[in-house]
Amino acid sequence: MENKTFPQSPAVAETTVLTSQIFLNHWQGHRGLTRRVIEAFPEDKLFTYSIGGMRPFGQLVIEMLTMAGPGVRGLAHGKWDSFEDVEKKLRGATTKAALLKLWDESTDEINEYWPQITSERFQEIEKVFGQYEGPVYWAAMYFMDNEIHHRGQGYVYLRGLGIEPPPFWDRH
Amino acid sequence: MENKTFPQSPAVAETTVLTSQIFLNHWQGHRGLTRRVIEAFPEDKLFTYSIGGMRPFGQLVIEMLTMAGPGVRGLAHGKWDSFEDVEKKLRGATTKAALLKLWDESTDEINEYWPQITSERFQEIEKVFGQYEGPVYWAAMYFMDNEIHHRGQGYVYLRGLGIEPPPFWDRH
Repeated sequence: MENKTFPQSPAVAETTVLTSQIFLNHWQGHRGLTRRVIEAFPEDKLFTYSIGGMRPFGQLVIEMLTMAGPGVRGLAHGKWDSFEDVEKKLRGATTKAALLKLWDESTDEINEYWPQITSERFQEIEKVFGQYEGPVYWAAMYFMDNEIHHRGQGYVYLRGLGIEPPPFWDRH
Repeated sequence: MENKTFPQSPAVAETTVLTSQIFLNHWQGHRGLTRRVIEAFPEDKLFTYSIGGMRPFGQLVIEMLTMAGPGVRGLAHGKWDSFEDVEKKLRGATTKAALLKLWDESTDEINEYWPQITSERFQEIEKVFGQYEGPVYWAAMYFMDNEIHHRGQGYVYLRGLGIEPPPFWDRH
């Protein structure tokens, strides 16, 4: 994660596209889909199956989890452990049941901390996990985009295993 | 694409996360990355290489292109051809150079039409491509999310081909 550039596009009038409420609903809708993708993996493939030397899906889910609970808590209050420390703790989850339990806990954490992010806070520059610098809204987008990106990879793994993934458009 | 559910999360005060300008910059940043992913494919693999029976990356890019120029034009002015008709026209692009040319044209189209979407318009309910019903902001998110999702699949194809994809965090 690196905030290398803010691309410049033509100027647009100040118009709201996503409110905090819509963002939260949208992300939690995505997270429900990701949960069903985790469930779709056979237990013995979740932490072992890989294509082209990539990380197995279980490890990608652990990366998503770092940015879920700990990420949103940090965005709300500016207190961060290092990304590596957070990830190390989560790596203890080595079964589907353990991953799903962490997933559900992080759903509650996001619901708790997200509403505490104020209007002003979304525009503040933050050092995310003490390391990646950019506005709070940018980090929130990164967390969600990263989940969509890696979940898309999980879809290929499932297809590679001969399993039909849940439909992309179905969010709940 | 189907707007099946609007998940309900806890109530959050009306706070802006993404303005129209930030959304445009963010999407065009993603689109620059997707362009580099297209470039990274060997010409002979772009429309042939597949894992688990999925569509080759060239076909996924054509789906993205339907939602880029024609999608944003429809969101701005409510005039739609059917998704199938738009896709059929784009399917004439069968080389990397032809895809990249369409990509660059759609970049200009997005820059032209996006600023014409008003505050009120983002909240209006639209029948996207005459078929998928939901608010304009929801459709815009769908277009971007769908690109991230399928580009993530392109990353697995590249790794499967032994090619290192461009870094996910690098948007320009």
